[in-house]
Amino acid sequence: MSAYACCSASPVHLFNILGTPHGVSVLKEGYCYKDRHGNTKAEGTASLITGPCPIVVDTGGPWCTQELANSLRKHGVMHESVPWVVVTHGHVDHAGGLALFPRSKIVMGGDVSEGPASFTAHDFGLDGPLLLTPGVQVISTPGHTGEDVSVLVSGTQHGTVLLAGDLFEREHDDHDDWRASSHDPDLQITNRERALMLADVIVPGHGPPFFKTGCTQGKWDTGGGHSAHHSFVISTPIKLDLNKGTQ
Amino acid sequence: MSAYACCSASPVHLFNILGTPHGVSVLKEGYCYKDRHGNTKAEGTASLITGPCPIVVDTGGPWCTQELANSLRKHGVMHESVPWVVVTHGHVDHAGGLALFPRSKIVMGGDVSEGPASFTAHDFGLDGPLLLTPGVQVISTPGHTGEDVSVLVSGTQHGTVLLAGDLFEREHDDHDDWRASSHDPDLQITNRERALMLADVIVPGHGPPFFKTGCTQGKWDTGGGHSAHHSFVISTPIKLDLNKGTQ
Repeated sequence: MSAYACCSASPVHLFNILGTPHGVSVLKEGYCYKDRHGNTKAEGTASLITGPCPIVVDTGGPWCTQELANSLRKHGVMHESVPWVVVTHGHVDHAGGLALFPRSKIVMGGDVSEGPASFTAHDFGLDGPLLLTPGVQVISTPGHTGEDVSVLVSGTQHGTVLLAGDLFEREHDDHDDWRASSHDPDLQITNRERALMLADVIVPGHGPPFFKTGCTQGKWDTGGGHSAHHSFVISTPIKLDLNKGTQ
Repeated sequence: MSAYACCSASPVHLFNILGTPHGVSVLKEGYCYKDRHGNTKAEGTASLITGPCPIVVDTGGPWCTQELANSLRKHGVMHESVPWVVVTHGHVDHAGGLALFPRSKIVMGGDVSEGPASFTAHDFGLDGPLLLTPGVQVISTPGHTGEDVSVLVSGTQHGTVLLAGDLFEREHDDHDDWRASSHDPDLQITNRERALMLADVIVPGHGPPFFKTGCTQGKWDTGGGHSAHHSFVISTPIKLDLNKGTQ
């Protein structure tokens, strides 16, 4: 088996949510499991927000960059010219393909790089969500690490989609060991509940997208007998000037 | 000016610390400053621990990967065959070149990827420092983010070298605005003091290496009138099997 045989990139047609002006396509579906020898195998999901302003969310590990570039090309997008890349958190299976995007604006942690070596800071606590383009905003969802973000896409054929990174490892992972790799499990649970209030579809970090199956006042049935209830306030998004420094 | 003109990689001969079996060479010296328009320009330092087991510490931003590969080659190292890469923290100007190292073992946060998509966890709190090879260990130094690590190299011509990432932005940055981008400034100060007790030379994240200029009992003069005093315990390093899963 070659060193790259672990790269099981999903066919790009397997999961596409259409929408105007933005849809969501999973470029490479993540996974996380233990093999028969007890070794952990993991890869992060990489996604594309389609439309007039293509946005890549997470880049997978460094071992599958060619597959990621190929998957983008099948969606009609050249990796060198993607306007925005969002890395949900700074782990190797999500940030490993950044080198494909040397001219993109990149959101990672509290930094926004506006092209090569040029930075602005975005304080999610003070500034609120970061609006990349109308209908697409980056929100702060720490827990797994101290600096996680997620990307909220409104108006797709299935409603609002949240590209959540490892806020959720996969659907129904309540009983999995995600807590062991969480910087702050209690904060992560709070942000999971918030996510389930915001979104109709969740794209998790290491499994296929899942749908929120029901909603009643103050309580959200996420399917499989799981529920969440919580209150929150989402502050007004900040509009960045997309023309400033765009490569 | 081309989009890549910002990449001011230092000549590779400018900073080399010799040693047996390990030395340290700065591949690309980082910087951080505001230009005349008030925009922040920043790039992370990338370094090479030389010797029989070459180790890359930080990879710079995604806009200078070719320069990083060239700099490695000038040191006789092909990027595809580096055994270990350590990313001190998950920010774009330090993790952007990971795609150069698809077959390396990579330490980033609490994860150790043992080759493509294979992971082991390392809990620095429970397991202590991570020994990569005799004389080179990864230690936990959070503050700038919640998951920062630094790399300690003993026995060079200038004593012990700490490749510290953004634990220090640069020498004499006490009065700079590093606190504004710190996840936990108090914890970062504690780990700075610890670093100054451990190391003779610090390689910071965004400036040239600097030397600790003096040491007296319980108080360390770091030069420029700055001093630090603190106590700490460093636990026994864990030895990884370097042959397991090496590409």
